[in-house]
Amino acid sequence: MKIVIDGFGGDNAPLDVLLGAAMAVKEYNVDIIVTGDENKLKDMAKEHNISLDRIEIVHAPTVIPVEEEPSLIVRKYKDCSMSVGLYKLRNDEADAFVSAGSTGALIVGATTVVGRIKGIKRAAIGTVVPTLAGEHDSYLLIDAGGNSECRPEMLAQFAVMGSAYMNKILGRENPRVGLLNIGTEETKGLELQVNAYQILKKSPVNFIGNVEGRGLPLCECDVAVTDGFSGNIALKITEGMAISFGKKLKKIFKKNMLTKMGALCVKDGIGEIKELMDTSKAGGAPILGLKKPVIKAHGNSNPEAFKNAVRQAILCVEQNVSGEISQSLEKLNIETKETNTEPIEQ
Amino acid sequence: MKIVIDGFGGDNAPLDVLLGAAMAVKEYNVDIIVTGDENKLKDMAKEHNISLDRIEIVHAPTVIPVEEEPSLIVRKYKDCSMSVGLYKLRNDEADAFVSAGSTGALIVGATTVVGRIKGIKRAAIGTVVPTLAGEHDSYLLIDAGGNSECRPEMLAQFAVMGSAYMNKILGRENPRVGLLNIGTEETKGLELQVNAYQILKKSPVNFIGNVEGRGLPLCECDVAVTDGFSGNIALKITEGMAISFGKKLKKIFKKNMLTKMGALCVKDGIGEIKELMDTSKAGGAPILGLKKPVIKAHGNSNPEAFKNAVRQAILCVEQNVSGEISQSLEKLNIETKETNTEPIEQ
Repeated sequence: MKIVIDGFGGDNAPLDVLLGAAMAVKEYNVDIIVTGDENKLKDMAKEHNISLDRIEIVHAPTVIPVEEEPSLIVRKYKDCSMSVGLYKLRNDEADAFVSAGSTGALIVGATTVVGRIKGIKRAAIGTVVPTLAGEHDSYLLIDAGGNSECRPEMLAQFAVMGSAYMNKILGRENPRVGLLNIGTEETKGLELQVNAYQILKKSPVNFIGNVEGRGLPLCECDVAVTDGFSGNIALKITEGMAISFGKKLKKIFKKNMLTKMGALCVKDGIGEIKELMDTSKAGGAPILGLKKPVIKAHGNSNPEAFKNAVRQAILCVEQNVSGEISQSLEKLNIETKETNTEPIEQ
Repeated sequence: MKIVIDGFGGDNAPLDVLLGAAMAVKEYNVDIIVTGDENKLKDMAKEHNISLDRIEIVHAPTVIPVEEEPSLIVRKYKDCSMSVGLYKLRNDEADAFVSAGSTGALIVGATTVVGRIKGIKRAAIGTVVPTLAGEHDSYLLIDAGGNSECRPEMLAQFAVMGSAYMNKILGRENPRVGLLNIGTEETKGLELQVNAYQILKKSPVNFIGNVEGRGLPLCECDVAVTDGFSGNIALKITEGMAISFGKKLKKIFKKNMLTKMGALCVKDGIGEIKELMDTSKAGGAPILGLKKPVIKAHGNSNPEAFKNAVRQAILCVEQNVSGEISQSLEKLNIETKETNTEPIEQ
């Protein structure tokens, strides 16, 4: 197994990429390629005493100007660290790709270079969002920000993609798929949701109907399907709420001697919340719908996060998530075709 | 001052309406009208020993079938408790209206019966959302679910409406208006956000640019402007997160003797969070853009919540929020007109 990592993607690149890569080699018995300026990477490895055993550095000289339009990056800069990584994946010189670079650049780049699974209309970001209440401790939000504008059949495909991921990677059997909406009734929402509902109803996924925003943190579904605009809002509000609760709790516990004692009494529980909410544990968000696994690591990934993104990439390869999506998609297409010949109930 | 309350709106009507009305009379030196089935209301008051001093019961015999389409309620049932209340307001027999009934019915009904301020394209729900971190302890989300589909000029009007409310009712000087979006750059978002940004930039409100979902719980703006679809998702995710944190904290604190002791040590702080997150304190959400104040109380309002909704209604009358919106709207129209003759910067 060989995983290629974008050496210059993310706020803490390239140092944390190298550190994470070295950790992954040790823990997962995997070969790693790191792309980027060869001299800089090698110097940094030397300087920080990072072993390059089983880590291959592949030169990618171009540095992207900060102001560059993300959607053009991979097309315009074939020699940047992201492009070189994507081409390694495309040319079968690696099994999966991890990058903490620009989400927009990565989705467009991966779609162009690696390609979508046959029949998939759009690749989408699936983010595993931690939850503190409900049946499980997380759900998958898809699309979490890739495609701001979507058509109903795209949402149905997101459902298929998300179900395959939750089943294969998180072992969630027959994952419950909810359509994020402003009410539970079948007729709620914009045209997008109303029409997506009809397709989902007849799709091969375990569709449980509309789920309101309130149901997401309570884990009322395993896969929450939505367009990238609402998905981004949902995800960021969740993050903001977690941060604000964390800040408030800290303030409460640090107030005086008594409250500090209180903090000690519930140390384990608070630690559990922190661990659940720790994004570096999750690794990254898979970009689903592509022929081969691509993982978007968080922009502020630390070595642990990069290591976990590699673990996630390995799992996607081993579990053949792309193959599973491809198979489910055939079922969706057959069932949707049948749907199309029937009168649509409204 | 006379406030009319929908006697049969909400899960706990009519008992909690009557109890809340009686509390409001005592606390705010106000006259109240309660609409609904006269016999039922009077019997209930008698049975629960609720004084009807300064409370007038106005008969509204019709009960709405549960399956009725909300948007048709006020048009079809002129004798239901909501309609009768709205007509009292329209005919100057009351100064403001409070209802915990269906949001959809109330917005359509209020728009039809009470009418919009001249020039306002749509009435919108403004919900004061509590925050645990940031400069203030709340922000106004508008539209929080009234109009799923919006045009850019509607968002600009929401900004004007929200600013007037936050300034007049919550005393927030020069409230910071943020456009809820998926990135901070001017070009981010769908066509709606991109175009709304250009209008807001030149509007009379204190526009601080795009705000991401993460910024809302951190109170990065005082007024968060968005369409009703995203607004509903944002609001419900916030609610769900608050509930899930509450559940988790309860679990942590109730685990064993030690953690129970911990709970005692931080009792005040936790109480503070609970109070901040208590929706009954806030009263209800104003429906802004109408000629006269209409307050949507939460569906599960208790007597305290009804009382606070009445307080809110009184404040809206005293502070003449509708008049303030009307004045700001004129400025917006002048500035937008000027904008229209200029080339739009992109």
